Amino acid sequence: MKSNVTEIDVRYAETDQMGVVHHANYLVWFEVGRTNFIKQIGLNYAEMEAGEVVSPVVDVELSYKKPAKYGDTVLIKTWLEKYDGVRTTYGYHVLDANENILVTGSTVHVVVNKHTFRPVLLRKTHPEWHAIYMSLVNEGK
Amino acid sequence: MKSNVTEIDVRYAETDQMGVVHHANYLVWFEVGRTNFIKQIGLNYAEMEAGEVVSPVVDVELSYKKPAKYGDTVLIKTWLEKYDGVRTTYGYHVLDANENILVTGSTVHVVVNKHTFRPVLLRKTHPEWHAIYMSLVNEGK
Amino acid sequence: MKSNVTEIDVRYAETDQMGVVHHANYLVWFEVGRTNFIKQIGLNYAEMEAGEVVSPVVDVELSYKKPAKYGDTVLIKTWLEKYDGVRTTYGYHVLDANENILVTGSTVHVVVNKHTFRPVLLRKTHPEWHAIYMSLVNEGK
Amino acid sequence: MKSNVTEIDVRYAETDQMGVVHHANYLVWFEVGRTNFIKQIGLNYAEMEAGEVVSPVVDVELSYKKPAKYGDTVLIKTWLEKYDGVRTTYGYHVLDANENILVTGSTVHVVVNKHTFRPVLLRKTHPEWHAIYMSLVNEGK
Repeated sequence: MKSNVTEIDVRYAETDQMGVVHHANYLVWFEVGRTNFIKQIGLNYAEMEAGEVVSPVVDVELSYKKPAKYGDTVLIKTWLEKYDGVRTTYGYHVLDANENILVTGSTVHVVVNKHTFRPVLLRKTHPEWHAIYMSLVNEGK
Repeated sequence: MKSNVTEIDVRYAETDQMGVVHHANYLVWFEVGRTNFIKQIGLNYAEMEAGEVVSPVVDVELSYKKPAKYGDTVLIKTWLEKYDGVRTTYGYHVLDANENILVTGSTVHVVVNKHTFRPVLLRKTHPEWHAIYMSLVNEGK
Repeated sequence: MKSNVTEIDVRYAETDQMGVVHHANYLVWFEVGRTNFIKQIGLNYAEMEAGEVVSPVVDVELSYKKPAKYGDTVLIKTWLEKYDGVRTTYGYHVLDANENILVTGSTVHVVVNKHTFRPVLLRKTHPEWHAIYMSLVNEGK
Repeated sequence: MKSNVTEIDVRYAETDQMGVVHHANYLVWFEVGRTNFIKQIGLNYAEMEAGEVVSPVVDVELSYKKPAKYGDTVLIKTWLEKYDGVRTTYGYHVLDANENILVTGSTVHVVVNKHTFRPVLLRKTHPEWHAIYMSLVNEGK
């Protein structure tokens, strides 16, 4: 399955007094990886939002194996895990410079109208997204 | 089962361009709820860290039902879900002013040495924590 | 001069590996103080934004005297420093529980159209805000 | 005067409901620029903190000209503005892709003992830092 790898230099502000990256920041890094994964497959989330829809997160899972630290460069590996026309699931690995897994996770997204937050079907509002996601999912089988 | 309810006024900085609270902030709110839950049962996490141990998160799950917005006051309900002497699981509900559930979640924690990040047993390093957690878990059955 | 005092319990996520609150968070606390100052004088910023205008920050100054820490409760004192119909300046003190000053600062704001970011005159779009701010400034003299 | 230019892709989480980057995040970007400026002149802040000292911010100034948005790539230009052996001042410009200035600012830092937060003299604890900073300041004259 196609994936995107994004390099991130840990920011000082991302640490907490435990001396490691605060656990909430990995969700922000997942989002950075997702933005780049979407760009890499030829789409653009910023443009999608300039239209009438947004794609909020509905479910999140994270497992923390080893902490990242200030001074580290980490890799965010992002891929499309599932897509059924309604829900899109992305998978993530955060890796250190030696490709040890620090954190694993997934996020599930729906697409909704920007103003009403009511579900919309990508197939209807963004047929090209739907086609690319369907083909990626089929490829992965 | 005993629980803590903490009131939070949504901060402007917690919103994103979707016009709602960014999903990573709920983990920060869980942490606020957890701090207060621990205080309410007579313990103090800041003091624990002043000792030799910290309690990092190892697993996280969140489900987002409805978004919180700037101007809202939300309630974070926090309780102890499981404790087996090694892992501690807290459960959370984020509720709006009408007690509708906005977000549900859980976090799993271990206790480790501050310097080495090697697991320690609360039973040995903080016997009073262990006793209180065991009694809360038994009470809940 | 009228001022608002808002109590904040330092959040774990607000600390960094220096063991104290990361310096960017004081701007977020100022914002919380500002929201409450505005409420206290009978106005509501969330409602203002529901209209056609927003009030971005154009200048900021902060001086850090002593760090706040996790476990501390701090007070954010906020007041209106200047208002000339175009620019609004708020002043801030962050105090510890003994009323020692930890941080001082100010933020300058304009009011702009939400879509174009072009300046608007509060006097025209929100005459009641203008009147209250003018009277507060005159009171303070 | 030598300066560092760091490229940053705006993160979704850095926006707020105004549809632009929240103003507190520029302080985080300044910090990223500062880390890279220090690396570029052959030093390493992460290693400095692994010793006995940290370098907290004591004063900050920011002026916001134009907002950055999600989807933008911005440049953080960082340089050494002043150094007198006690206080170090860095200057910053945040530029858009066309080199328009979005935000300008400066941060003033001291060096203190990690545990006591009492001032230390770089000249004594880190003579190589002192020498490099002195030569940069003299070069800039």
